[in-house]
Amino acid sequence: MRLTLAVLALCLPALAQTPWRDQGLLHLAASPHARLHPVPVRSVTLQPGFWKARQDVAIGRSIPTLLALLEEKGTLDNFRRLSGPPAGGAPAVARRGPLYTDSDLYKWLEAAAWSLAVRPDPQLEATLDKTIATILAAQEPSGYLNTWFTGEREKLRWRQQTSGHELYCLGHLIQASIAYYRATGKRTLLDGAQRFVDYLLRDFGPAPKRPLLTGHPELELALAELYRTTGNRQCLQLAAYLFSGVEQERLKLRPRDLAYMFSGQPFTSRTAFEGHAVRALYAATGAADYYLETGDPGFRRTLDLLWADLSSSKMFVTGGVGSRPSDEAFGEPYELPNRQAYTESCAAIAGLLFNQRLLAATGEAKYAAPMERALYNGINSGMSSSGTLYCYRNPLAATAKDRIRNPWYDTCCCPPNLQRTFAALGAYYYSTSREGLWVHFYDNSTLDWRLESGAPLKAVVKTGQPWRGDVEITLRPSKQEEFTLFLRIPDWSLKTRLSINGRPAPEAPAPGAYLALKRVWTPGDTVALTLDMETRLVYANPRVPEDNGKAALQRGPLVYMLEQPDNPGPSVFDVALDHAAPIAARFQPALLGGVTVLTHRGLAYTRPLDAAPLYSFQPAVPARPTNLTFVPYYAFHDRGPAGMTVWVPVR
Amino acid sequence: MRLTLAVLALCLPALAQTPWRDQGLLHLAASPHARLHPVPVRSVTLQPGFWKARQDVAIGRSIPTLLALLEEKGTLDNFRRLSGPPAGGAPAVARRGPLYTDSDLYKWLEAAAWSLAVRPDPQLEATLDKTIATILAAQEPSGYLNTWFTGEREKLRWRQQTSGHELYCLGHLIQASIAYYRATGKRTLLDGAQRFVDYLLRDFGPAPKRPLLTGHPELELALAELYRTTGNRQCLQLAAYLFSGVEQERLKLRPRDLAYMFSGQPFTSRTAFEGHAVRALYAATGAADYYLETGDPGFRRTLDLLWADLSSSKMFVTGGVGSRPSDEAFGEPYELPNRQAYTESCAAIAGLLFNQRLLAATGEAKYAAPMERALYNGINSGMSSSGTLYCYRNPLAATAKDRIRNPWYDTCCCPPNLQRTFAALGAYYYSTSREGLWVHFYDNSTLDWRLESGAPLKAVVKTGQPWRGDVEITLRPSKQEEFTLFLRIPDWSLKTRLSINGRPAPEAPAPGAYLALKRVWTPGDTVALTLDMETRLVYANPRVPEDNGKAALQRGPLVYMLEQPDNPGPSVFDVALDHAAPIAARFQPALLGGVTVLTHRGLAYTRPLDAAPLYSFQPAVPARPTNLTFVPYYAFHDRGPAGMTVWVPVR
Repeated sequence: MRLTLAVLALCLPALAQTPWRDQGLLHLAASPHARLHPVPVRSVTLQPGFWKARQDVAIGRSIPTLLALLEEKGTLDNFRRLSGPPAGGAPAVARRGPLYTDSDLYKWLEAAAWSLAVRPDPQLEATLDKTIATILAAQEPSGYLNTWFTGEREKLRWRQQTSGHELYCLGHLIQASIAYYRATGKRTLLDGAQRFVDYLLRDFGPAPKRPLLTGHPELELALAELYRTTGNRQCLQLAAYLFSGVEQERLKLRPRDLAYMFSGQPFTSRTAFEGHAVRALYAATGAADYYLETGDPGFRRTLDLLWADLSSSKMFVTGGVGSRPSDEAFGEPYELPNRQAYTESCAAIAGLLFNQRLLAATGEAKYAAPMERALYNGINSGMSSSGTLYCYRNPLAATAKDRIRNPWYDTCCCPPNLQRTFAALGAYYYSTSREGLWVHFYDNSTLDWRLESGAPLKAVVKTGQPWRGDVEITLRPSKQEEFTLFLRIPDWSLKTRLSINGRPAPEAPAPGAYLALKRVWTPGDTVALTLDMETRLVYANPRVPEDNGKAALQRGPLVYMLEQPDNPGPSVFDVALDHAAPIAARFQPALLGGVTVLTHRGLAYTRPLDAAPLYSFQPAVPARPTNLTFVPYYAFHDRGPAGMTVWVPVR
Repeated sequence: MRLTLAVLALCLPALAQTPWRDQGLLHLAASPHARLHPVPVRSVTLQPGFWKARQDVAIGRSIPTLLALLEEKGTLDNFRRLSGPPAGGAPAVARRGPLYTDSDLYKWLEAAAWSLAVRPDPQLEATLDKTIATILAAQEPSGYLNTWFTGEREKLRWRQQTSGHELYCLGHLIQASIAYYRATGKRTLLDGAQRFVDYLLRDFGPAPKRPLLTGHPELELALAELYRTTGNRQCLQLAAYLFSGVEQERLKLRPRDLAYMFSGQPFTSRTAFEGHAVRALYAATGAADYYLETGDPGFRRTLDLLWADLSSSKMFVTGGVGSRPSDEAFGEPYELPNRQAYTESCAAIAGLLFNQRLLAATGEAKYAAPMERALYNGINSGMSSSGTLYCYRNPLAATAKDRIRNPWYDTCCCPPNLQRTFAALGAYYYSTSREGLWVHFYDNSTLDWRLESGAPLKAVVKTGQPWRGDVEITLRPSKQEEFTLFLRIPDWSLKTRLSINGRPAPEAPAPGAYLALKRVWTPGDTVALTLDMETRLVYANPRVPEDNGKAALQRGPLVYMLEQPDNPGPSVFDVALDHAAPIAARFQPALLGGVTVLTHRGLAYTRPLDAAPLYSFQPAVPARPTNLTFVPYYAFHDRGPAGMTVWVPVR
């Protein structure tokens, strides 16, 4: 009880400092090592355009249908059966689903909470309140809350830390509770999550307390955000303990566990990503959060090493991550197979979160580039245009035999992960810093927020992105204000044009960097960018075995693919790009909800390659001209399973 | 007892027909659907040259050191502990190793037996007699013999048929017993194996008998050979039952099991290879044996489909097979990754055995070509030059981090499998048919055998293969004989010269076919071939994702690789072949036991690729000339772990 009072005492100043409504997507306002501070989710409203269409589907269709599925599959009943069971008796209904289903509901709750922040919906809010009551009714007086390790499995509690997902579920509970708090100001779930954390703080930690391990990292980032929300520094210390790797002996961890979990050994002893991609990237994300709060130079060194490893040899061109179905794991450097790619939606999102933290720490555009790559491609592909089919895997090549888009997965981590990303999307677009406002991604949207001086600031972005290169930003400070507007010039925009209030700037901004425009801004000032929308061939490092001699097409932030429905001629695996022939772009409003298609006079092999020998002393040469049509990768299999490939040989 | 007598009655004619000394490596003399009949192992003596050096190491060093290891690891003690345990008490010593270790000893026994057939060794024979006595002392009166499912595990007998390897071990027991019988005429082990089979015939089969399944196929081919050896057709009927797939329900087999085991469903319902590569290829080999005896057209259709699937899309250029570490499995068509290749030595050998049967059925050279490819490359690589290190995996690319050659594996299937192949190697070179003599592979060797007319025939092959193209075959029938000499012209020998008794033939023999020379042959007649030893670039079908835009070098039957020790310049992963530059060949007697090396003025990237970006709008171009030296693939990592690659980009 003493501890709880102490916690509350510690919370109050931080909470007083920033009202719940004003806390950012990540609440970094007081984080000493954050250069950038994300804006609140509620402060950005998407306007009609590319991403609003996706957000509309996510909020209007995907979130409600997933709740129905979670009900149908028993995920909520797993909580209900624990509240008010017959005295002394076992619950009447059996628990359903694998041991981590609690986290699916929590992540769905987080998604629904962020949707409330951008689009208030009293009926949904009432559903959430009821759901939260259902969850908390299953919480034990101790604070413990997990529907798997309860009843007949209570004796297994904390005995299966490498595989049990107890802390993973808690992490998502915390994140859901924070989202709901920031969306509504309601603390019920937040207090429940804190009670569980208090239970951990009481009993677990370095000897003589009981040992603790995140077998599936995730709690680490949640603890950091909980600290930012409540001000209770013990949460951060618990994260530090989880990163310390001091429990290898007490928990009898094997080297294979340490690699697979990316946990259990000192985080600062890591030099490369390995093991389960989502675990590793969540761990690194949590470590980046820890760095944002502490500035620990050992963490920074490790984060830099890991980021370099990821971005130089382990990321797909779609921003997808994770090469091996076996162990859902990273592979060796450059092991980036296209059809066998595991590229779990959750891993692409984890990569987004990892880069989001490093971007906040530094303001360096090199961290925003892979965020954009993932958002537009390898994350966007994870939810169908209908909002009811999801990808667990997002490979870069597939056949008509591959069933990749499905309405349900027993391991239902990806669908709500996609939903929470789309629901909160606008808050990824903007940050503030002491210097001014940062715009990371250009999408039709309005920002209603303030500078860090406290001066109110609205901004309106109008753009044809990702199909056209025009971007117009109108700034509406409440009065004249001097600050810097940081505009990210994407690495793919090799020739960018800039004008301010209609006056063209003499010099072209450099790609792959933030353009810093420092001046006194008057309400109504406009900045216009014309991004370079030339279609480009992307080449992979020749060390990537499967992409040698091939190219992918990229136009703006979008990676394209050849898919069979658009190419009624030869198999998409039997053609090549002609490097001398042009690529034309044309917007087709009726196709795939409206996309720019790319057409090209390419080359086909004279006979289908599946009738050609496996090995030959003469190379097969694609010599027959053929028309090729490319569409954006994110829509793969949206029209059903079909042959599909991102990388195409170049002649 | 009645059954046993019937069995003996059935055996006698077949045994009387062909004395043990005269039975072929496969004893197909009476197989109605075999066109070709392998010669006895004892009839071929390797003479100094490429393969004799390998056979010497296998027999002189590998076989004895593996016996010592099998002793050290308890494989023999596992039998000893079961003979004469204290009455009613448990054996004094615990069983060691995984459940299939019996098969490792049996396969070693088979290897040692074949070595006796080509190189009598009274001391080794005495060791084998003692080992056989040890094995048979553990056999139960019922005929059952398995050191795992005995004692405390007796109650699990036949209850784990998908994973238990009981029949797999029996299959290798049968093969060892046949090899020892053909090498020495001793029947003790053969009779013991037959007792186990009799036990099966008594109790197992279609209802109302108990159901039986080869969770790891292997028994099927052994049963066919047992039938050929003893004439007991019930053995063949048991194989037919195992192929029938009638026990899916009684054994509750899941679709995943059926795919993984390549067993349990009607063999004739298969259309493509899938699942565990060794299981699938052993099953197909046994099915080919079944076809050789029955001519079943459904089996032939299935075998043709499977062969086409394998050779058109699932075989590595080294003759290796098996793409995925996960499940040790085949992949999708064209899924042939180089570094991740699983390519187990046992799978390459299984591919050899599969093609060996189809070659015997047809006499078509297309089945001999993959046998040669595997023998010289993906099988030959499996044993180090020292004879004491073995590959489980034989990938086509590796780094200095990869530890591929090891003295011992707890799953010790590959080492004795390699040994039995090398020990009996000469018998793969020659066959007879009603028409005459067939020579499949050219190696310095003497054949001392007979035509199918019964006329004695000796043949001597003198050749510089695989380094030089000269092949001279001297025929020594005991008197003038008219018959056809079938000489395989390898597919890689595009321009072959032929002369008979010094007279050049006017036309060049066609590659990839058997040249049939029908005439009256006089003792001392010579046929000389000059095979085309030009080094060629081999191209993979562009559907193989990793080999696009690359080539492998092949010279004669040997596939080459770039290995770092021969290339002190840039990384072997940072270079390319210059398709305009020549490739020179030079024999280096001091290198790797004497090999022909290939040198080439290739191209290197200006800077190491691991310092280049992962993705770029400009392709990396190898522009700096660099000297490249290639050595035969089979010797990879023979000098220790190092960067190695078979496929190299071509500019």
